[in-house]
Amino acid sequence: MTGHTIYRSSSYAPVNIAVIKYWGKRDPTLNLPTNSSLSVTLSQSDLRTHTTATCSASYTSDSLLLNGKDQDISTARTQACLRELRTLRRKLESESPHPLPELSSLPLKIVSENNFPTAAGLASSAAGFAALVRAIADLYGLPASPTELSRIARQGSGSACRSLFGGYVAWNKGEKDDGSDSVAYEVAPASHWPDMRALILVASAEKKDVSSTSGMQTTVKTSSLFPARAEQVVPKRMKEMEKAIQGKDFETFGNITMAESNSFHATCLDTSPPIFYMNDTSRAAIRIVESLNQAAGKVVAAYTFDAGPNAVIYYLAENEAEVAGTFKCILGKKEGWEGQRGKAVTAKKELNGGAKVAAETLMGGISRVILTAVGDGPMRSEEHLV
Amino acid sequence: MTGHTIYRSSSYAPVNIAVIKYWGKRDPTLNLPTNSSLSVTLSQSDLRTHTTATCSASYTSDSLLLNGKDQDISTARTQACLRELRTLRRKLESESPHPLPELSSLPLKIVSENNFPTAAGLASSAAGFAALVRAIADLYGLPASPTELSRIARQGSGSACRSLFGGYVAWNKGEKDDGSDSVAYEVAPASHWPDMRALILVASAEKKDVSSTSGMQTTVKTSSLFPARAEQVVPKRMKEMEKAIQGKDFETFGNITMAESNSFHATCLDTSPPIFYMNDTSRAAIRIVESLNQAAGKVVAAYTFDAGPNAVIYYLAENEAEVAGTFKCILGKKEGWEGQRGKAVTAKKELNGGAKVAAETLMGGISRVILTAVGDGPMRSEEHLV
Repeated sequence: MTGHTIYRSSSYAPVNIAVIKYWGKRDPTLNLPTNSSLSVTLSQSDLRTHTTATCSASYTSDSLLLNGKDQDISTARTQACLRELRTLRRKLESESPHPLPELSSLPLKIVSENNFPTAAGLASSAAGFAALVRAIADLYGLPASPTELSRIARQGSGSACRSLFGGYVAWNKGEKDDGSDSVAYEVAPASHWPDMRALILVASAEKKDVSSTSGMQTTVKTSSLFPARAEQVVPKRMKEMEKAIQGKDFETFGNITMAESNSFHATCLDTSPPIFYMNDTSRAAIRIVESLNQAAGKVVAAYTFDAGPNAVIYYLAENEAEVAGTFKCILGKKEGWEGQRGKAVTAKKELNGGAKVAAETLMGGISRVILTAVGDGPMRSEEHLV
Repeated sequence: MTGHTIYRSSSYAPVNIAVIKYWGKRDPTLNLPTNSSLSVTLSQSDLRTHTTATCSASYTSDSLLLNGKDQDISTARTQACLRELRTLRRKLESESPHPLPELSSLPLKIVSENNFPTAAGLASSAAGFAALVRAIADLYGLPASPTELSRIARQGSGSACRSLFGGYVAWNKGEKDDGSDSVAYEVAPASHWPDMRALILVASAEKKDVSSTSGMQTTVKTSSLFPARAEQVVPKRMKEMEKAIQGKDFETFGNITMAESNSFHATCLDTSPPIFYMNDTSRAAIRIVESLNQAAGKVVAAYTFDAGPNAVIYYLAENEAEVAGTFKCILGKKEGWEGQRGKAVTAKKELNGGAKVAAETLMGGISRVILTAVGDGPMRSEEHLV
């Protein structure tokens, strides 16, 4: 083998957890959603994908390795991302006044690693596609903005577009048929409201009932309540939520977050056949949050559930003792408290009566916790996996 | 004590289980619903309330005894029923060409018994108020039609109005503010489609999360998906369901029944705070029904859930071996199969793979079964409890 140059670039990208949910596509090929959505980007010290993109004439074909396992790179979604990125590189190559290496025609070898257990059932595809797009864009030296890259990442996995930004991020559903205006934008950076914390309760591993891709299509086709959600409920909440974030109004942020999660799962239940992502453990988490808010006389904690039974509980740093402390009291023996953030939490000693039954259910159904916070967007890394 | 005459009359009234759900009041005092509903009246050999209404000058005050326990008769709802019935009797007394005993001014003693365990969490208030209204109407010799009595029973408990008829019964929501047109009517008698069976899976006793009275008001106030259900979804389904019953079309009957149950529970979930009536056991019952229908290649069974975790599964007699037989295979050791109907069911020997996990969950969460069928309306009885 002759010494072909290996070009490479690495990037970290974050996980995001929506507070206004993406559920339903108006165009399944382009991943264009029926409604806008909004998420909080989580800290990459706790949850991130690390991806190294390399290309070389010595490679025989494109390949993707995730956590040491070969992935199928021929899927329409991954191909859409690679095609878009190569097109941008080709444009760069052809328009450059000085000759550039023709990276657009070289096979890609992409290597990815998550710093969190894949089995946790966390939406890793968002961080995965964001890191892939960001790493290849850097490899290709593309001048593309995060907005432009979000348009590309969206075609890999809808919610991935929101992982191109840090902080509080919206995904505008867009109006155009070609999806060119269906992109993410920053509502506020993490630094605007840095006190946002997220406690993730990972439910004991169970295979997902219905994949979100097929589930959301069935909902669009069969739920008679879904149109009201997409056309009326979400547009109103998007405006209210952006305002709540601008004004650091946790009460409104929390109320909308909880109502949104319930609205999304309600349309899942209204699907034929019905889709259930929450289970009795999820409901126990809701009961604990309700009792926390009742005891505080205001909203100090807000739950949200994606397409699975895991609970994500948002709260502000000032209420850590009350919120995370209560969950540490219940779940202190589970994995996940041993990190720096977890150690800093003092387990509360008492739980009120109503929450006790829920606490037992929770203890039986949760396998680990992840304590994290709002964080920044993708970052270039000099640490390479290849 | 002098020998005052004791006047008495007794009636049986049936339970009904809605296939298009009543949830939400446009007038809480008059029990006027936000949408029409439709139910199947169940056989009184399996589920009924037996009520004897008596009145006498020897009584000192109105009283109500249910299953041997004194009930509070002063509630606005019971009072509304008694007031309406006494008004009709008073009219009769004043308009009669020959003198009638002034029963309208005598204290009432009402004694009621259910032939099913109260702990089963079955909606006994429907049968209860229907039997109470019917027994007093007979005692007073009122010429009132079941429709007229349904208007009165509705004020006691909304769904009670549907228990004044047998077979397939609709409750028209009505348009008038005084509720005079919010009455039940017979869609078809039991004899029109006598093969309808209902298998009730009674979930292990657990106190109801939220009473339906307060739950439905919270849904009306807070669910953003509820208006679409009340204004668009239900009116369309009412028409389709009436047509399905007229045409004895079980496929449509079953599909609407399941979609309706899910739609109702979806609006409960969309309530703030969310209301959960179904639990993991309920979901297991849904999974079994889905696998039965899948195996049959058509709808042979249809589930519905009221404001609690109990499943009611409708099916036709011709599919008894398949439907009830499968549940007897899973739940054969539970109470409830020892009656005539239950004995006649042969437990199926095999369950397919997917349903096995659900079967285990079901086994753990169901305490007893009740096997019944569509049945007739209230009946006068010469058996008196006083």
